[in-house]
Amino acid sequence: MVIILKENPETSQLENLISWIKAQGVTPHITQGMHQTIMGLVGDTARIDIELLQQMEIVEAVRRVQEPFKNANRKFHPLDTVVKVKDAVIGGGGMAVIAGPCSVESEEQIITVARSVKTSGAKLLRGGAFKPRTSPYAFQGLREEGIRLLLEAKKDTGLPIVTEIMDLSQLDLFADVDVIQVGARNMQNFELLKQLGHTNKPILLKRGLANTYQELLMSAEYIMAFGNENVILCERGIRTFETYTRNTLDISAVPALKILSHLPVIIDPSHAAGMAKFVAPLSLAAVAAGADGLIIEVHNNPACAKCDGMQSLTMPDFDKLMKKINIMKEAQTACNAF
Amino acid sequence: MVIILKENPETSQLENLISWIKAQGVTPHITQGMHQTIMGLVGDTARIDIELLQQMEIVEAVRRVQEPFKNANRKFHPLDTVVKVKDAVIGGGGMAVIAGPCSVESEEQIITVARSVKTSGAKLLRGGAFKPRTSPYAFQGLREEGIRLLLEAKKDTGLPIVTEIMDLSQLDLFADVDVIQVGARNMQNFELLKQLGHTNKPILLKRGLANTYQELLMSAEYIMAFGNENVILCERGIRTFETYTRNTLDISAVPALKILSHLPVIIDPSHAAGMAKFVAPLSLAAVAAGADGLIIEVHNNPACAKCDGMQSLTMPDFDKLMKKINIMKEAQTACNAF
Amino acid sequence: MVIILKENPETSQLENLISWIKAQGVTPHITQGMHQTIMGLVGDTARIDIELLQQMEIVEAVRRVQEPFKNANRKFHPLDTVVKVKDAVIGGGGMAVIAGPCSVESEEQIITVARSVKTSGAKLLRGGAFKPRTSPYAFQGLREEGIRLLLEAKKDTGLPIVTEIMDLSQLDLFADVDVIQVGARNMQNFELLKQLGHTNKPILLKRGLANTYQELLMSAEYIMAFGNENVILCERGIRTFETYTRNTLDISAVPALKILSHLPVIIDPSHAAGMAKFVAPLSLAAVAAGADGLIIEVHNNPACAKCDGMQSLTMPDFDKLMKKINIMKEAQTACNAF
Amino acid sequence: MVIILKENPETSQLENLISWIKAQGVTPHITQGMHQTIMGLVGDTARIDIELLQQMEIVEAVRRVQEPFKNANRKFHPLDTVVKVKDAVIGGGGMAVIAGPCSVESEEQIITVARSVKTSGAKLLRGGAFKPRTSPYAFQGLREEGIRLLLEAKKDTGLPIVTEIMDLSQLDLFADVDVIQVGARNMQNFELLKQLGHTNKPILLKRGLANTYQELLMSAEYIMAFGNENVILCERGIRTFETYTRNTLDISAVPALKILSHLPVIIDPSHAAGMAKFVAPLSLAAVAAGADGLIIEVHNNPACAKCDGMQSLTMPDFDKLMKKINIMKEAQTACNAF
Repeated sequence: MVIILKENPETSQLENLISWIKAQGVTPHITQGMHQTIMGLVGDTARIDIELLQQMEIVEAVRRVQEPFKNANRKFHPLDTVVKVKDAVIGGGGMAVIAGPCSVESEEQIITVARSVKTSGAKLLRGGAFKPRTSPYAFQGLREEGIRLLLEAKKDTGLPIVTEIMDLSQLDLFADVDVIQVGARNMQNFELLKQLGHTNKPILLKRGLANTYQELLMSAEYIMAFGNENVILCERGIRTFETYTRNTLDISAVPALKILSHLPVIIDPSHAAGMAKFVAPLSLAAVAAGADGLIIEVHNNPACAKCDGMQSLTMPDFDKLMKKINIMKEAQTACNAF
Repeated sequence: MVIILKENPETSQLENLISWIKAQGVTPHITQGMHQTIMGLVGDTARIDIELLQQMEIVEAVRRVQEPFKNANRKFHPLDTVVKVKDAVIGGGGMAVIAGPCSVESEEQIITVARSVKTSGAKLLRGGAFKPRTSPYAFQGLREEGIRLLLEAKKDTGLPIVTEIMDLSQLDLFADVDVIQVGARNMQNFELLKQLGHTNKPILLKRGLANTYQELLMSAEYIMAFGNENVILCERGIRTFETYTRNTLDISAVPALKILSHLPVIIDPSHAAGMAKFVAPLSLAAVAAGADGLIIEVHNNPACAKCDGMQSLTMPDFDKLMKKINIMKEAQTACNAF
Repeated sequence: MVIILKENPETSQLENLISWIKAQGVTPHITQGMHQTIMGLVGDTARIDIELLQQMEIVEAVRRVQEPFKNANRKFHPLDTVVKVKDAVIGGGGMAVIAGPCSVESEEQIITVARSVKTSGAKLLRGGAFKPRTSPYAFQGLREEGIRLLLEAKKDTGLPIVTEIMDLSQLDLFADVDVIQVGARNMQNFELLKQLGHTNKPILLKRGLANTYQELLMSAEYIMAFGNENVILCERGIRTFETYTRNTLDISAVPALKILSHLPVIIDPSHAAGMAKFVAPLSLAAVAAGADGLIIEVHNNPACAKCDGMQSLTMPDFDKLMKKINIMKEAQTACNAF
Repeated sequence: MVIILKENPETSQLENLISWIKAQGVTPHITQGMHQTIMGLVGDTARIDIELLQQMEIVEAVRRVQEPFKNANRKFHPLDTVVKVKDAVIGGGGMAVIAGPCSVESEEQIITVARSVKTSGAKLLRGGAFKPRTSPYAFQGLREEGIRLLLEAKKDTGLPIVTEIMDLSQLDLFADVDVIQVGARNMQNFELLKQLGHTNKPILLKRGLANTYQELLMSAEYIMAFGNENVILCERGIRTFETYTRNTLDISAVPALKILSHLPVIIDPSHAAGMAKFVAPLSLAAVAAGADGLIIEVHNNPACAKCDGMQSLTMPDFDKLMKKINIMKEAQTACNAF
């Protein structure tokens, strides 16, 4: 951590600052410039409150040298984390595809889609029971009943299930859910993250619409700091000035998050662009960039889907896409071998 | 609502669409262009699911003509909503200042600040008990004890209190809180919004970092649709590419939200820029633009504040600012008289 | 084009509007709603000035149904445009790689790099002679001399050359340049675009940092409207709130621009992230998404490059990347065959 | 300047770096941390090429302590710059209003508007002769003839004139123009900025749609580095995700630019929101925030304006606004006196 002081600090203030730093168990090294005094802190600075420092009168700026996340940091955990969910493996060089409808609508629907995506090669089944909708007048999901139907589909196909939690009061209903999804709008719902840290379930953590990589990793850190290390990061498009696509897929998130962290990184091409015709090119780009998996919306009848039908693939289109994903994954593995 | 069809739609699909539209109780009017067919829908289109339409094969695009919010819409409620909190009045041409520390730290601190801001002219006391922090290692607030201390300060000064809820499990603790704040990160925590709709308490709803005016008003709509009409909108800075300021205050939100809605609009100049020296110019700009109030962070000792000290005013600086706000409010009232 | 009128328009104003519309050679079709009157315009609306309409008192909003660009629009030119530059072919299903240093520094440097990238498989040579730099104190390029050196490298290797123009006064110097690049900062330098429309040279048009797809295509339209149809579109990263990468590569630009337009689309992975280690994953993602080419910075000694060394590949790293690009292109072609 | 080194740098590389730094005339001070070595540079670091440093193998990151602009920096020029244009004064505590039509359309139009805005209290006349338009099919301005008409209006009213240059080839036509405007799209047209640095005319430099304060000040630095110190900064709205307003006015630019620089700062409320009804509240907010001036679009007949009529005020509305601006300026002066 580097502290840049204001010009001509008062001696008493400078002494106070130095004492405070030493009390935190780290050592300050001072560089006296013509216009500026700079202090380098040596020691474990991860728990120093950067805001406290910034508000001191003699401090002009504070710059972190080390990232503020520890458990999620690749520097301290060089090896890839691999999350295992029954037979599915996410992370460590494979390609795990999660597929299913935006929302669970009926037993017939979810079982039809589950069987189909399994045949095509999906390793996990997704489906929304609790649906965050911008409008209070839109379909809010089947809720408790939706989870029951997902469990039926799991029993039928053997596919582990992934579904979104919207509030910690719902946690009991997720006892048999295999992977709990935290949606983009809840990425900084810190009370929820803490509780999920106390479970032992894999958490699929989606990046918020306007959150940085560091904030995403700090939210992962919330879960990990409370004991749960099974976190899967998911890039699903960020909000920019471009309005042709629903969001802007930040494909650089794949290499960036893999440099910064050891956690697996998957891509959601369906929400990223919000249009079915973009799902194939964005999926293939994600595979080529080195993603560990994909989460794709598939519906037995997109034109009648109760939500997000515009971005859902039909079952035959998903089947075709899986074949392309396999070709592309093979090429990516060959490239990696260099 | 206007529906733009793809070129050369099949007759059977067109007939299906027309039947579907009529079944929603609205009437389609068709305009046949050279390249394009356009359908204008006449009737109550507010509850038509725009996404369902968009995913139909023959539909190229759907454009709303009317806003999707009703209770929050000025078109249907031309008069300003005025929210009354004990003696304080928010909306309708006045200037209500809410002031207090970022977080409640001790009984002495909160009572000292409460007395001081009351003397300076604040009408409500703010103070964080539950604190959303990016890092799990940062101070998380005094929580339950923080609310108890706020109630002490209320008893001492008579000021109504405003404090943030982070999860609906905390709702019981807010029984004696006068205004419940929903923070920027929770603006789309729909489960929480629904519950707040069932209370009769004024809700201070902050705009999310990357949410549009329409999304903010849809979140207000969630609260109002469940019966609570006491919503105060708050602009607190949005996330942009500029990093010198913590966020970018969108001052146009004041006139924009007042055109779109009848709800009161206040500004948070402290979080908007994240630096104490910006609080005065941004507060004065907000008054001049016609805001109904301000929420300002004030601390008895900013350099030792447990969070956000960088953006907190000292008590004497707040006192000076209140005098300026009064001068500016008088000028704004004179301008309004034209 | 759809015009939405304000509630209860005056009859005289409505008649004026209808006359004006008919005078433009198009026919208005009126739909009378409960709250709103909607007018659909039938005919050639491409040259109707949307802003003029918007400012009429009785008009609430105007929505285009057709895109405002014509020459660049795939609707009117369904087949892919293929730009030929000597032996290189850009567009139509191939993969054209343009490589070379950020800036031309010396004859030895440019010839060394040119020979190396040719051997590795690049089809065109890039190199900056005129350099747009944020700071007036930074290296501004060798300018006229830089172009002379590029022509030497062209003579030596046979590779056609691509270099950036910064002002139309420089146009005479570009007589022997094969492809003229318009940089992101000049994407809306309309005087320059018009002049380039009068040349017959291929133009590599980079998307501006904060410009939409539609604005990029309108800038292409400037060039094409004046007679030059050889435009290559280039996505090079947009500006967002994320600061870890220099810019955010918008990979969806590849499918989006290909839907909207028939022009070839290439990706600049070097500027997109601003770091050499991102160039390989982003290049492979671009190939997988269906880009027609790549423009990559390669330097004989990145650590001593006069600008942008951080994002330049070494010659051996570029050679390795070309092998991966070839593998990935083969996979993408196989996927396309489905 | 602070250099953060990678872990365990090689001794020879470290020695090379130290020699290089000393050769730049500055002194390195080294702080050895547990994980990290930090180097503080003492001396005149303004001309050190930060990119060159960043690309060295042993360097992890470089952080500037001082801003990279010098001539525009308040640290080196504590007193406000005041730009004088005939009788008008911009900067130093006054309020200079520039008004006029978006584009010059006819002699009658420009003289009518000029006389009217002068009577209302405007100190300078604006009017576009060269118009940057997104579409090649839109009205491009009267160009040379437009400047002739502006000079007629100047002769008639005595108001100094402000008009936009789009390319340096037009410079000769600006001989009698009082203030040359550089538009948002040309803020980083560095060839143009350099030439303007060689004139002695006041330059009104608009902030680009997606440019930071620092980039704006670096563009001012381009003009100033070549000898012209008469630069007026103008905030005119930035591009964000919000689409209700045309752009988002960044009101914090006023205090921010005044902290960073000594140059005058004005606000363009017309382009910021793109709607006439926002001009008054945004103008008053700008005055309250401490802006040195405003540039406002006024038209004798907005509904027939050839461009941007939606955001133009009528002459009576401008007259009313000037009265409000005067009231608000008086209040702001009173606030400043504290």
